[in-house]
Amino acid sequence: MSSGSTMILNMDPAILNALREDVTSEDVSTNAIMREPQQGKAELICKQDGIICGLDVFARVFELLESGSHFETSCKDGDEVKKGQLIGVIYADIRTLLTGERTALNFLQRMSGIATNTNKMVRILEGKHTKLLDTRKTTPGLRIFEKYAVRCGGGTNHRYNLSDCVMMKDNHICAAGSITKAVQMARDYVSFVTQIEVECETLEQVTEAASCGADVIMLDNMDNETMRQAVRIIDGRAKTECSGNVTAERLLEIADIGVDFVSSGALTYASPAMDISLKNLTAI
Amino acid sequence: MSSGSTMILNMDPAILNALREDVTSEDVSTNAIMREPQQGKAELICKQDGIICGLDVFARVFELLESGSHFETSCKDGDEVKKGQLIGVIYADIRTLLTGERTALNFLQRMSGIATNTNKMVRILEGKHTKLLDTRKTTPGLRIFEKYAVRCGGGTNHRYNLSDCVMMKDNHICAAGSITKAVQMARDYVSFVTQIEVECETLEQVTEAASCGADVIMLDNMDNETMRQAVRIIDGRAKTECSGNVTAERLLEIADIGVDFVSSGALTYASPAMDISLKNLTAI
Amino acid sequence: MSSGSTMILNMDPAILNALREDVTSEDVSTNAIMREPQQGKAELICKQDGIICGLDVFARVFELLESGSHFETSCKDGDEVKKGQLIGVIYADIRTLLTGERTALNFLQRMSGIATNTNKMVRILEGKHTKLLDTRKTTPGLRIFEKYAVRCGGGTNHRYNLSDCVMMKDNHICAAGSITKAVQMARDYVSFVTQIEVECETLEQVTEAASCGADVIMLDNMDNETMRQAVRIIDGRAKTECSGNVTAERLLEIADIGVDFVSSGALTYASPAMDISLKNLTAI
Amino acid sequence: MSSGSTMILNMDPAILNALREDVTSEDVSTNAIMREPQQGKAELICKQDGIICGLDVFARVFELLESGSHFETSCKDGDEVKKGQLIGVIYADIRTLLTGERTALNFLQRMSGIATNTNKMVRILEGKHTKLLDTRKTTPGLRIFEKYAVRCGGGTNHRYNLSDCVMMKDNHICAAGSITKAVQMARDYVSFVTQIEVECETLEQVTEAASCGADVIMLDNMDNETMRQAVRIIDGRAKTECSGNVTAERLLEIADIGVDFVSSGALTYASPAMDISLKNLTAI
Amino acid sequence: MSSGSTMILNMDPAILNALREDVTSEDVSTNAIMREPQQGKAELICKQDGIICGLDVFARVFELLESGSHFETSCKDGDEVKKGQLIGVIYADIRTLLTGERTALNFLQRMSGIATNTNKMVRILEGKHTKLLDTRKTTPGLRIFEKYAVRCGGGTNHRYNLSDCVMMKDNHICAAGSITKAVQMARDYVSFVTQIEVECETLEQVTEAASCGADVIMLDNMDNETMRQAVRIIDGRAKTECSGNVTAERLLEIADIGVDFVSSGALTYASPAMDISLKNLTAI
Amino acid sequence: MSSGSTMILNMDPAILNALREDVTSEDVSTNAIMREPQQGKAELICKQDGIICGLDVFARVFELLESGSHFETSCKDGDEVKKGQLIGVIYADIRTLLTGERTALNFLQRMSGIATNTNKMVRILEGKHTKLLDTRKTTPGLRIFEKYAVRCGGGTNHRYNLSDCVMMKDNHICAAGSITKAVQMARDYVSFVTQIEVECETLEQVTEAASCGADVIMLDNMDNETMRQAVRIIDGRAKTECSGNVTAERLLEIADIGVDFVSSGALTYASPAMDISLKNLTAI
Repeated sequence: MSSGSTMILNMDPAILNALREDVTSEDVSTNAIMREPQQGKAELICKQDGIICGLDVFARVFELLESGSHFETSCKDGDEVKKGQLIGVIYADIRTLLTGERTALNFLQRMSGIATNTNKMVRILEGKHTKLLDTRKTTPGLRIFEKYAVRCGGGTNHRYNLSDCVMMKDNHICAAGSITKAVQMARDYVSFVTQIEVECETLEQVTEAASCGADVIMLDNMDNETMRQAVRIIDGRAKTECSGNVTAERLLEIADIGVDFVSSGALTYASPAMDISLKNLTAI
Repeated sequence: MSSGSTMILNMDPAILNALREDVTSEDVSTNAIMREPQQGKAELICKQDGIICGLDVFARVFELLESGSHFETSCKDGDEVKKGQLIGVIYADIRTLLTGERTALNFLQRMSGIATNTNKMVRILEGKHTKLLDTRKTTPGLRIFEKYAVRCGGGTNHRYNLSDCVMMKDNHICAAGSITKAVQMARDYVSFVTQIEVECETLEQVTEAASCGADVIMLDNMDNETMRQAVRIIDGRAKTECSGNVTAERLLEIADIGVDFVSSGALTYASPAMDISLKNLTAI
Repeated sequence: MSSGSTMILNMDPAILNALREDVTSEDVSTNAIMREPQQGKAELICKQDGIICGLDVFARVFELLESGSHFETSCKDGDEVKKGQLIGVIYADIRTLLTGERTALNFLQRMSGIATNTNKMVRILEGKHTKLLDTRKTTPGLRIFEKYAVRCGGGTNHRYNLSDCVMMKDNHICAAGSITKAVQMARDYVSFVTQIEVECETLEQVTEAASCGADVIMLDNMDNETMRQAVRIIDGRAKTECSGNVTAERLLEIADIGVDFVSSGALTYASPAMDISLKNLTAI
Repeated sequence: MSSGSTMILNMDPAILNALREDVTSEDVSTNAIMREPQQGKAELICKQDGIICGLDVFARVFELLESGSHFETSCKDGDEVKKGQLIGVIYADIRTLLTGERTALNFLQRMSGIATNTNKMVRILEGKHTKLLDTRKTTPGLRIFEKYAVRCGGGTNHRYNLSDCVMMKDNHICAAGSITKAVQMARDYVSFVTQIEVECETLEQVTEAASCGADVIMLDNMDNETMRQAVRIIDGRAKTECSGNVTAERLLEIADIGVDFVSSGALTYASPAMDISLKNLTAI
Repeated sequence: MSSGSTMILNMDPAILNALREDVTSEDVSTNAIMREPQQGKAELICKQDGIICGLDVFARVFELLESGSHFETSCKDGDEVKKGQLIGVIYADIRTLLTGERTALNFLQRMSGIATNTNKMVRILEGKHTKLLDTRKTTPGLRIFEKYAVRCGGGTNHRYNLSDCVMMKDNHICAAGSITKAVQMARDYVSFVTQIEVECETLEQVTEAASCGADVIMLDNMDNETMRQAVRIIDGRAKTECSGNVTAERLLEIADIGVDFVSSGALTYASPAMDISLKNLTAI
Repeated sequence: MSSGSTMILNMDPAILNALREDVTSEDVSTNAIMREPQQGKAELICKQDGIICGLDVFARVFELLESGSHFETSCKDGDEVKKGQLIGVIYADIRTLLTGERTALNFLQRMSGIATNTNKMVRILEGKHTKLLDTRKTTPGLRIFEKYAVRCGGGTNHRYNLSDCVMMKDNHICAAGSITKAVQMARDYVSFVTQIEVECETLEQVTEAASCGADVIMLDNMDNETMRQAVRIIDGRAKTECSGNVTAERLLEIADIGVDFVSSGALTYASPAMDISLKNLTAI
């Protein structure tokens, strides 16, 4: 469950933004028909198996439209749900239910889709040392929702954004002169709690990065054999992250090489939304 | 190409929001290494076949960070592109290129993914009367980008939001008393240029909706035979939209029934991002 | 009554903006004198005959300043009110009443002025087929309030803004090449539920617009005789709107010509505010 | 002419807000027809006599949509203009002209309407000591535009808002215990450059207000004879403001009584917009 | 105590801004450990003698994060507090207490620091005619908090900003041609309740300013003898303000000269924060 | 020098906010006197010795008011400057110079004050292993400016906010059950690049924190002897930070104990602003 502060400070602006995108002047269908308040309820029903995620966000959409609305559920984010399962019941003015429905589901379905897809990958890694990471390839404006969904699916978050971790790519290294100089300049510049990762494509780069004190070394688009040698060279001096061409099929091979982390952008840019719907709206 | 006004009024806020999500204080990697401006360029290269979409948005990310940046391309939104194709070259301070890269690609890849996926469906309908529609199942906060991408892929847009079209669902109808009363109340309430669509699940509903002056009738989750009868009942008195269980496989059958439109939420909630990357960043 | 969602999503930002315009640091008069909360009430009294409109907005101004405030009234928007009539009583901390008074009245008086003026025109059309329309000549930033007031006065809304209806003016037509091409291009571009209106100044234009499938034809600044011919040419193939030089005096003549709609910008740009005031503030 | 800082800091937010109200997703008419930039120009023509006001605001609407647009005019705010007069020519991409036209005119027409109406009243006072004031009865969100228009029409501004002047009304006085105490409390509380005005309805109140150091005394809804006595009692110890029932007809009588100021809310809440239009849009 | 309106309209935006600066995605420490709500309380304890200021702001930080939180205190802003004193107890979900603590203290400590420092200066002036003023040398974005703190410390506010008082400096005077012309132009331009202050460095300037009707004359960086002559020249025709090199040591001398006001920028730019902390957080 | 992206994304909102706080409607003094643009320049002069910081921010204030303004300087942030030194010359419309002056100086003086004060402390540590850290005790809303100033003064930044580093305080530890459990829960929850710091007051706590894998151990309010033992216990297994009662006098003793970092909140909450002014404004 997200804390109230997270919701208010970090999620509400995106939720309100989405609602205003969907209601630029008013919900003309609802306002045309229903001139007076009428309390009602509707059932949230899952239409496919998966990992549910975003229940607080779902409920919050209605709360922001009507402070007295409430959502009853026995599920929590990260739970496994089944096709046909009743997830919960949302209570509010029927007008609120109709106006908020699509936006609430748009959040819930996408978050659950990511959690479900992440979970499939994570299960492959069960019992292995290697952990599954997300990336910054998230939907513009929705990172906090998507990073949270990855976690609910059992994944591990990589850096949140460009401000909280250093990632030295070839262009940074080139501008600095060498990996060693780049790591040194970063260490001088950033907060002492900020970690420094170096992206390496060759074993020479790996050797230098491990020697100059990088906290994390990304093994970028390496074949399995090269990666294996890289891990041996690093020998625990830095955390290792495998990146590039990470598919479900290849996951086990990568894990057996012994890297600490494997990252997949597809978790957030290619997970289809989960099928969930709001049914049986009735007056009460 | 989006008009300048569309960009400034309707897209810029989302782009800035995405950039601020990715840079909450500063891009520490870039700022650590590069203290002085250094003009550079980078190549935008397509890594899979598809329909490119979002080139203006891609360029705008960099323009918002640095007004003097510019993007040169011979492509335009909606063009077919091939794996390996050089889409264009972006020129800016290297720091701008590094800071904006991920956000620019996040927009471009998602928009191109939607255009590509839409286009696959549209081609199936080639030569048919039936047109492919999107829905409101878009990513929260990105509707304008996604509706535009559907159009670039050859699709047709359904209503933009809850304010610009009436859609009478069972709950509205129930609250109004009947389809006829609901359409009447809507006609009295809304702008005279706003169309009224009625969602129908049975032929009785279809019969009433066609008689009372609905502009559009949605045939919701009907089997082919029922839909065929519905089209016959309506007989041109309203536009017809087929909704529910619309898959690539079923598209041709639906088209042969003769409905005017077929809508698919998956265009916007299940199109994987297209693989595109920024390469060969060099100083100039 | 506006739905809660309409208020929260679409009206609150304008109300808060107005309050912040009036209180850039603090209400120095009130804060100087009253250091402690003191519940009070004040009466809302009408000082001229008319149609009241904006009661929810009036109450909302105080609610946004103090969530526990409340407004009691037996009137609702659209009601006829008389000079001297007690419209309702507002309860809140006296400081809230004093700080919010002017902003609340500024909204209420303007909205009631528009409703009153619209109603005068609408009464002239009573029993006629022709309906009275507003335009986009609204006060910048207050469209939702003013379009709502027109409706409360008995008027009908034209398009809400540039995004939800196509209006082809001479410049669009000129750029497209002809009315027929313009309508075709618009039909290809816009959502299938968006209507297309063509502005016509001559009967030749009317003839072409009616033939090429325009949904609405605006008869712009035509004399009565030309308008009569235009209606005959169109012959039900499109809705008709009379625009230009629409005065109370000319309304009946226009209606007798049989156009579907007559639009008047003056409803929103020339309706004087209604005289309403807050009286008898007392502690309770 | 407004300074650039005033425009950027204080007017731009309202102008952008108005544009976004009018273009919630895009200008579908213009974007449907014109896919490529095409420079053009249009003439701003006055359709009635009056005082022009808001030329910078008019030009700024287009500048905000397209930084390269420009407006050429030989008029300046406050100038007398005649029916049929060419006020200026605006140059921009034709799409910008079409998208911005209505918003630009909505500002210009309202501001000119206020300036024109104010000027009519000011002329009545020509040669008199008494000056014409506006009030806080302005359109929510547009105060800076309307106060400026009053000044362009020759009027004088009263306080801008609740933060920059003390106005002691009966409720404040009642809460404080007496006029003397209220003025004392205000003097202790507010900035030493903030003036204190006291609203008086009786001569007893006037006598007390003048004695206790009020900077301004408002003679509220007094008949001419009472006002004359009030001015005599005050005898220069405070500035005097006549408020209530101020009509063009009564202005001269009020002036002859010798009050320093006379205030009229109608300047901002009942001035009809001036008729101005954009004509002869052509490509260049 | 600030009124609720002041808090909601003028302080909340700055408080939320500060919270979002401190929590760009979520409070990872708190969220990692505490997944469920747990009511708690914490004690606000003063760690040095001084004047407490900002108690409402302190409480509001927690209220904005959790509407059910509350703060119990027997102190009020402006009270003298002692090292070790328990100021109050704040009740909320422990997660709210942990997330809001630093932001709440950052406001409270700075405001109390200013009130304390102001109070030290004000005591020196006790029994004198001269009053202590603040300036516009406040922390960007926090003026309302700092001006309030000055008042709680016993100081008097100068103008709030560039919009509510005229200050004619040498550049304005130079551009106008003379002090007399500058005052005249200002009088014509500004609201009639706006006061006009003229900055003078020489006795010639003082003589002119006093003659042409300036409301306030600033004696800028004058030595005591020159200031004494200036006060004699002005002779009550305008209020007088001593500015420049105002130190605690020199305050009494300045007061003895008889100026009405003495202003000190250091009140807001050089008052160290007061030491206050939140202790003994416990579950309840 | 800040990169352009940092300025646009992270600093501009605070700068505009500050300008709007200072100009709620318009700069009445300037607008009253100067109706037409007039290019001018002014000299930025240092009035005390110190470290200059915020030159880009200073220039940006004017750029945001007038895009054509420019600042010429041979200094850069972090440079030592002397009393009386000409720092640079700012060129803009004189109205822009007058309107922006105070806001620009408010930023520059505070940032330079922090850089100067930080630098004094850093010099004491010269040649030592121990580095000086800032804290989150920054001015609400100005963290990015103040953290940058600390760096310009030679200091090192601690975590930016609650989202980018874990800090386990006694309440977190208590809720988790033990330091070991708290570190474990945090490791499971946060991004793998986020470091975990544990606040310790006793040697027992230090022993546990060092054993369970904390990345940083804060030695909170320990006396020198205890701290010395703590460093010995930790023995390089975690970075060490000394916090509490850090004064210039005690700095050398702390450094000699061999902690890695020493943090001081006073850098940002008690550094007086540096005296800098804008002089010799002239037309050009």
